[in-house]
Amino acid sequence: MLQTHDQDSGFARSTAVRRDHEGRLTAQLDGGWEVGGGILNGGYLLAVAARAAVLSSPHPHAVALAASYLRAGAAGPAHLQVTPGPTGRTLAHSTVVLADEAGPVISVQATTGTLDPGPQTYTDDDTAPPSVTPVEDCIDVAAAAAGGSTVPGVVAPGLLAELDCRLDPATAGWAVGAPAGEAVMRAWVRLADGRDPDPLSLVALLDCLPPSIWGAGTLGWAPTVQLQALVRALPAPGWCLVESRTGQVAGGWIDEDYRVWDATGRLVAVSRQLARTPRP
Amino acid sequence: MLQTHDQDSGFARSTAVRRDHEGRLTAQLDGGWEVGGGILNGGYLLAVAARAAVLSSPHPHAVALAASYLRAGAAGPAHLQVTPGPTGRTLAHSTVVLADEAGPVISVQATTGTLDPGPQTYTDDDTAPPSVTPVEDCIDVAAAAAGGSTVPGVVAPGLLAELDCRLDPATAGWAVGAPAGEAVMRAWVRLADGRDPDPLSLVALLDCLPPSIWGAGTLGWAPTVQLQALVRALPAPGWCLVESRTGQVAGGWIDEDYRVWDATGRLVAVSRQLARTPRP
Repeated sequence: MLQTHDQDSGFARSTAVRRDHEGRLTAQLDGGWEVGGGILNGGYLLAVAARAAVLSSPHPHAVALAASYLRAGAAGPAHLQVTPGPTGRTLAHSTVVLADEAGPVISVQATTGTLDPGPQTYTDDDTAPPSVTPVEDCIDVAAAAAGGSTVPGVVAPGLLAELDCRLDPATAGWAVGAPAGEAVMRAWVRLADGRDPDPLSLVALLDCLPPSIWGAGTLGWAPTVQLQALVRALPAPGWCLVESRTGQVAGGWIDEDYRVWDATGRLVAVSRQLARTPRP
Repeated sequence: MLQTHDQDSGFARSTAVRRDHEGRLTAQLDGGWEVGGGILNGGYLLAVAARAAVLSSPHPHAVALAASYLRAGAAGPAHLQVTPGPTGRTLAHSTVVLADEAGPVISVQATTGTLDPGPQTYTDDDTAPPSVTPVEDCIDVAAAAAGGSTVPGVVAPGLLAELDCRLDPATAGWAVGAPAGEAVMRAWVRLADGRDPDPLSLVALLDCLPPSIWGAGTLGWAPTVQLQALVRALPAPGWCLVESRTGQVAGGWIDEDYRVWDATGRLVAVSRQLARTPRP
């Protein structure tokens, strides 16, 4: 049986991938990552697929993942089929299909490699973190939900057990009927069990917020069609700052970009997804 | 034999995909799209794969494509294996593997759907086109190359026969040994045969410029590892404005974002790629 490095953390347990006695990779999809309606979070599913890619590679980190979201995935037993592609000294390609008991859920192009702990040698000004409300003045979504003064629908109850999410009040007006008008969402996020982020848990943060279009007053559920995640650095310990932003909505399609900075302000992961426009 | 709609255009011929008598999809990869060293342009390869996805789908447009670049592709005969995924009323998923005579070149997650000619219902300020030098004052790369006053390496000679590329002098300082210091490249681009852009030719524009990191003074070749392309609208006739930008370079990895606006200033396509840092 293959083991994960940090097998005693809640996140490692939720995303654990094992090789069964017939050599197949299996996982137990964790209902704690449901976003409502029995549907599992897209970033969580991608992190499980990334774990399978890493287990099947000589390289330690998933650096690029691009997934087609074929249908909603449900908690319970799952298996992962990894088809290796070219493997070299610096990187390896593979295709990963994650299937639950009802069939394929996501199909993923994965690239594994090594994230070097060294500094950036070039950064665009645009990679600096945005101004944000200090974490102690943000909305503790779990506490708000538990106290009855629920921020409606911010994060489904299940996800609150996995992620500690502190929403920037500047991007939370929609929760009290006063959307800011801009399709942006910002939050400080860490794993609920207090563990520090690792490159794999960053993947689970790349689709963890309410749809950013809620900030422009359009509520509802936006099912992901395709999402690309890039992990760019080993994250420092502490809170991550997560920002999501929608560029445009047209013809039934909507995009969303995520950026994640670690506690030192370094941009450590990004994603871009195409989704269908929200259904009420 | 399947036919493309606009089979008499140069671009349609270069990217034509046909079904042979055994039912396999084949293409003839066009050496005109070489970027040097016998290596075909990544956007061109992706457009050929997109054509195969559309031919195998009930939906007319490739809206999301994510490709792993497995190895460099060469001009000559190629075949395309399309594995259909879930197909619905608004979209269809598939996986496409494009292989040349030496084996697989790109492996692609593809989503097809319909691009609606209607307007955007939401746009972020950031989707507006950047300020740019008027096309008549930009550097005609083909003319510069033909006249001997070559802008060195701007676009390989082959690509000049396919694309009419007018580089913004504000982002061309590197060509005369005076890089602007910012990893940004901007150009007006259209098909060299004068045809107006269509959704498929936009895909070929999403990796058509010199590496944007050249603008920061780092020259060399940056091989694409993974690239996601989203096509967001039917482009208007006329020139497209293409901008590419690098966010950060670290640990041997470099990213590059492309944005393409049509002649009306509408953002019609975007891409993001992870590549290896330039090799001299």
